[in-house]
Amino acid sequence: MEPRLRLGMVGGGQGAFIGAVHRIAARMDDHFTLLAGCFSSDPERGRASAADLRIDPARSYASFEAMARAEARRKDGIEAVAIVTPNHLHAPVARAFLKRGVHVICDKPLTATLAEAKALRAQAEKAGVIFALTHNYTGYPMVRQAAAMIAAGELGEIRLVQVEYAQDWLAEPLEATGQKQADWRTDPARSGLGGATGDIGTHAYHLARFVTGLPLESLAADLHSFVPGRRLDDNAHVMLRFDGGARGMLWCSQVATGMENRLVLRVFGTKSALEWSQEDPNYLWVGPLDQPRYRLTRGGAGSGAEAARLSRVPAGHPEGYLEGFANLYAEAARAMVARRAGVAPDAAVRFPGLSDGVEGVAFVDACVRSSRRNAAWVRLGL
Amino acid sequence: MEPRLRLGMVGGGQGAFIGAVHRIAARMDDHFTLLAGCFSSDPERGRASAADLRIDPARSYASFEAMARAEARRKDGIEAVAIVTPNHLHAPVARAFLKRGVHVICDKPLTATLAEAKALRAQAEKAGVIFALTHNYTGYPMVRQAAAMIAAGELGEIRLVQVEYAQDWLAEPLEATGQKQADWRTDPARSGLGGATGDIGTHAYHLARFVTGLPLESLAADLHSFVPGRRLDDNAHVMLRFDGGARGMLWCSQVATGMENRLVLRVFGTKSALEWSQEDPNYLWVGPLDQPRYRLTRGGAGSGAEAARLSRVPAGHPEGYLEGFANLYAEAARAMVARRAGVAPDAAVRFPGLSDGVEGVAFVDACVRSSRRNAAWVRLGL
Amino acid sequence: MEPRLRLGMVGGGQGAFIGAVHRIAARMDDHFTLLAGCFSSDPERGRASAADLRIDPARSYASFEAMARAEARRKDGIEAVAIVTPNHLHAPVARAFLKRGVHVICDKPLTATLAEAKALRAQAEKAGVIFALTHNYTGYPMVRQAAAMIAAGELGEIRLVQVEYAQDWLAEPLEATGQKQADWRTDPARSGLGGATGDIGTHAYHLARFVTGLPLESLAADLHSFVPGRRLDDNAHVMLRFDGGARGMLWCSQVATGMENRLVLRVFGTKSALEWSQEDPNYLWVGPLDQPRYRLTRGGAGSGAEAARLSRVPAGHPEGYLEGFANLYAEAARAMVARRAGVAPDAAVRFPGLSDGVEGVAFVDACVRSSRRNAAWVRLGL
Amino acid sequence: MEPRLRLGMVGGGQGAFIGAVHRIAARMDDHFTLLAGCFSSDPERGRASAADLRIDPARSYASFEAMARAEARRKDGIEAVAIVTPNHLHAPVARAFLKRGVHVICDKPLTATLAEAKALRAQAEKAGVIFALTHNYTGYPMVRQAAAMIAAGELGEIRLVQVEYAQDWLAEPLEATGQKQADWRTDPARSGLGGATGDIGTHAYHLARFVTGLPLESLAADLHSFVPGRRLDDNAHVMLRFDGGARGMLWCSQVATGMENRLVLRVFGTKSALEWSQEDPNYLWVGPLDQPRYRLTRGGAGSGAEAARLSRVPAGHPEGYLEGFANLYAEAARAMVARRAGVAPDAAVRFPGLSDGVEGVAFVDACVRSSRRNAAWVRLGL
Repeated sequence: MEPRLRLGMVGGGQGAFIGAVHRIAARMDDHFTLLAGCFSSDPERGRASAADLRIDPARSYASFEAMARAEARRKDGIEAVAIVTPNHLHAPVARAFLKRGVHVICDKPLTATLAEAKALRAQAEKAGVIFALTHNYTGYPMVRQAAAMIAAGELGEIRLVQVEYAQDWLAEPLEATGQKQADWRTDPARSGLGGATGDIGTHAYHLARFVTGLPLESLAADLHSFVPGRRLDDNAHVMLRFDGGARGMLWCSQVATGMENRLVLRVFGTKSALEWSQEDPNYLWVGPLDQPRYRLTRGGAGSGAEAARLSRVPAGHPEGYLEGFANLYAEAARAMVARRAGVAPDAAVRFPGLSDGVEGVAFVDACVRSSRRNAAWVRLGL
Repeated sequence: MEPRLRLGMVGGGQGAFIGAVHRIAARMDDHFTLLAGCFSSDPERGRASAADLRIDPARSYASFEAMARAEARRKDGIEAVAIVTPNHLHAPVARAFLKRGVHVICDKPLTATLAEAKALRAQAEKAGVIFALTHNYTGYPMVRQAAAMIAAGELGEIRLVQVEYAQDWLAEPLEATGQKQADWRTDPARSGLGGATGDIGTHAYHLARFVTGLPLESLAADLHSFVPGRRLDDNAHVMLRFDGGARGMLWCSQVATGMENRLVLRVFGTKSALEWSQEDPNYLWVGPLDQPRYRLTRGGAGSGAEAARLSRVPAGHPEGYLEGFANLYAEAARAMVARRAGVAPDAAVRFPGLSDGVEGVAFVDACVRSSRRNAAWVRLGL
Repeated sequence: MEPRLRLGMVGGGQGAFIGAVHRIAARMDDHFTLLAGCFSSDPERGRASAADLRIDPARSYASFEAMARAEARRKDGIEAVAIVTPNHLHAPVARAFLKRGVHVICDKPLTATLAEAKALRAQAEKAGVIFALTHNYTGYPMVRQAAAMIAAGELGEIRLVQVEYAQDWLAEPLEATGQKQADWRTDPARSGLGGATGDIGTHAYHLARFVTGLPLESLAADLHSFVPGRRLDDNAHVMLRFDGGARGMLWCSQVATGMENRLVLRVFGTKSALEWSQEDPNYLWVGPLDQPRYRLTRGGAGSGAEAARLSRVPAGHPEGYLEGFANLYAEAARAMVARRAGVAPDAAVRFPGLSDGVEGVAFVDACVRSSRRNAAWVRLGL
Repeated sequence: MEPRLRLGMVGGGQGAFIGAVHRIAARMDDHFTLLAGCFSSDPERGRASAADLRIDPARSYASFEAMARAEARRKDGIEAVAIVTPNHLHAPVARAFLKRGVHVICDKPLTATLAEAKALRAQAEKAGVIFALTHNYTGYPMVRQAAAMIAAGELGEIRLVQVEYAQDWLAEPLEATGQKQADWRTDPARSGLGGATGDIGTHAYHLARFVTGLPLESLAADLHSFVPGRRLDDNAHVMLRFDGGARGMLWCSQVATGMENRLVLRVFGTKSALEWSQEDPNYLWVGPLDQPRYRLTRGGAGSGAEAARLSRVPAGHPEGYLEGFANLYAEAARAMVARRAGVAPDAAVRFPGLSDGVEGVAFVDACVRSSRRNAAWVRLGL
């Protein structure tokens, strides 16, 4: 067995949500070992977080620049870094590691602005490192199954793409209470131009894009902030037109009372249709024209190789959010291990990367531009 | 007990779907007796249909005009007429009976054009008859329950209204086969300007309007015909803005592969949310902010008087489409019986009528106007 | 069209639940006209009920014997009688009409004792009338679909039959409040030896029997009254062994807190399995070995002729309890109309009758015998 | 942060299912590090498995006895051992480590015979080590929630306990193909006296026991092998009577066509009821008497501290089988770390142990005894 990949992390100190998720995801399949970090902009919290994580104090850094420099000098320096900071820091942190040849696993959205996103892509391509963006929902096995079925033509020609991502955690002005997650996510300086659009709309868009394979032709968006005083959108209604003629709708909301993390994709083709819901991720519903609707289960009859290669347990034993997230880490690890060996990764390996990241930021940018023009149709600025 | 109301019918001969539904609805609660009809434009089929229905041959008419005239002359002439023809005939048939003081129960949409709708409303108001429009889905008890909860303020301020009505029966060019239902529904001369928009979009719009009580401020619609050669829209994506600031989306489709009759309404307010699905109509889901999501059942605990007055059997004994339809007949009957007695009907009696009909046609009209301007925002032409 | 069948009713006066259900069921498809009745043992209530139902006062009777005699003398006397009294009266009422050649539609269970049931069967067979027992749940179209699939061998050899019927309306001592339904159902003198077993266990048993076609070999039952002071069982756990080797379980309860009318049947064969739930009756789940689980819908793709002949509206338009009930009336009507004409009814016509009734009472009898012997295995006393 | 616990494993080599699950569970929360193992009775496969797992070859052992001896001699020897062998080896392996003071995490059932189970319990109590039995389903957060609600009296007095565990992977004679999992599970010499009863019935029994807290008074079991030639039961129907008067049913089957891993528990009390299904483990349904049924979600509103302490991600982000399994490892780790420090673990720490193991084997033993006496009532031989 290959030695574990040496991993560092920027962000994700005590009290952060997504940093802990990345660490479990990295650990799940035993491909990585976390050895270094700059876990907080607050040095005291950073040190305490490192101690919690059993990190050698010498490799707990006060700044990401110091970390990038110091790790690059070590023989046993990190091979990959996980970036789990607020959005506006993704680009500078990524650049610091990219230029030293360190692979990057970065939370989404890629950057806070489209210009930054394109610049980062250019630099990363030059650096030749592996760059994985954790649009974790496309790591779910049944999402892979859905994409495989569409790629194989099982749906016929795609006509309709209906996607929604509804939450309610910002139904009230949580940011006014100082709650950390709400605070930066509703702050344009740290989150970028999109609120719900950037935080969850990008997930919904990527999910539709990944599963259908269809490039977007144009969109018309109606963004709104329902909560008084909120500085970024907390709800977006978007009409979609895809290359080739499919149409659809995307709805994302963080004020949808009673909704927890309802990300649902439905795709309708001339021959069949698919439906997947993140809150019940082990199922994929299939609705063929003139045949009974059926339910594929992860690992069950009719579920194929693409789902199976990202599964750990048999059908009927549900896998969840952490396993889906871990699948992206595992996919990235396969690419990194292949890179170590100087070979190409297995053809099946697939994870969101820079072009998905640029497209996600372009989606937010287009929504904001459209909404400012009263939901005029606009194209992605790719 | 009051004598049964004497009912006639125009349309609904052998092979028609909705005529039989109206007859069961009229019979369910024993308020009506069907005594006369002009069941088909084809006299032979009309006669045979009358015989099937045990109608006195003398009261089986070859034209609706003859029927209106003859019945008006009889002492035991019909008190109400059910109109179940294609859309373009609703207005002329209704006018023939209205002017003779016969109450009307008319299928939706009210008319094929907005001008006709308004003219009909004006005439009917002058005639002083009762006019019921069978937007049957708002006859379901749990839809009444939903409306009552919103009217009572249980949802707080409404923010979001997501409604969809998805079918797949026109996913292929069924009209090309001569299938009767598909034939007239895709023909602008008989159906009006809207295809899916008129046939089912009006139901979805009325459902949202009835339950929330919110007038529409404007809409932006993207209508499309996916099936080559189709002359009317078979899919519509519509963004909605309501008076008072709520926003929403309406999607209706007759090419949504695998969908049977999926009419779903979700309403999100500042305090709570509701979800109702026509295919499982005995349930109403409630999602209060910061409390567990719960499920009301028709007749069950927490289900109130508005649902109870339109129910026949206890909780756990499902009622369906025909009972919901019959509820509109029963409500209209209560109004008609009160009219006989020269009194006002009970305050709880409620059924869709002319203003709902005008608004439905205005909705179709606005969708078509908006879509022709590439989904520009337009107002209803009320 | 045939003239409507002339129907009378015994029981079902004001305040009764099941009488109103029978009347809607009789009216739904317009096969019957209700012309006479003895609606209550209380003459005043009987007269008032008749008036509510627009029954000629001359045909509102104070006793079922008087009714049977008088109707037999009329030229336009009733052709069929619906019996909707408490259980202990089923036999005497049925006998009064049987001997005058009147067809019977009787609520279940057939009688309060097994001896009575057998005697009634013998008499009815001699009388040659049509006898329908309203085990209404086997009138649901998807139950017919299930039976047809099993009869066609789609499940292979049946191994397991799991059936349950759970309610909670007797979770508290409702009979102590004088509530009418609870009062007689918990009274051995009027209900018979079985409480929940007779009231709903017989439905569950009949459902399993009807769908699988399997005769019972033996059962072991553990009956219990959870509510202090209750005189009949309110819960039964029963293990089942069928002829041919299938096994199963039946659970019926009227103290299952939170359950409304949860009647669920699951049948597992060597090749496939079925699941049907009364509260969502338009669906039938199919679970073939090594294939994805699929969902048949009433009227939808894959749903066959047996379901279709008992359906009124297309897929996606739910039918419910009343339609299922009406199907038994319609089936009985077809038999009665054929009898009028002196011909055999269509081969597809099927409704529960006397042998089902005897078997149902034998089931209750066997449960009581087994439970008294501490759940020893016993056979039905057929 | 505490140093990780040093873990060894017996069983779980290449191709085994449950060994890999234990390893992920041990790794998930970073409490353990796997350092030694005897992964297979086949030395070659054992070595290869160790290499796959990056185990020092010096700590890859050919026999569990050698492993126990050698590790006991090392300063850095393992502190805990995970036993993931077929059932008949649980006892000898456990004994080898127990007597050297090594904590044990053992798969279920505890042993193949009741005598062995009791002897093991006695020895382990003397040894004073921590013994965790991986009845993993009670590690699910919403199972903990259910137990807490019952312990707090929210259900009132428990009346009914309905539990089932249905699978179909042995619907055909899979053991005849040499499939490894089927082979030993249907072999009395390696599995013990119970087939489905031991493999999954014990899980169902433990789930009911854990959640309700009710000791079993007696049971009546009907065990059967449907597949010709099978040597152990593949289906069991069991009636249950609990101390205090509750009753219930347990059904376990490995021939329930179309079922994957359907473990469902329903508990009905005088005031409320609960329902939980393993295949959708993030939900817990609550059915209070005379109130609407509601759905608790893991981490959502109304879900309490017991669920929260075993959760990693917020509501709406599903956790699954591996997280539930990892919860037992985490609970056991907390106890082991407390033991290191010579203190008592936190009072909330809870995991199945020896008495649960003895009770599980006693359950199988009682089922077999009852079934041999034609489902006579028997008591557990505790």
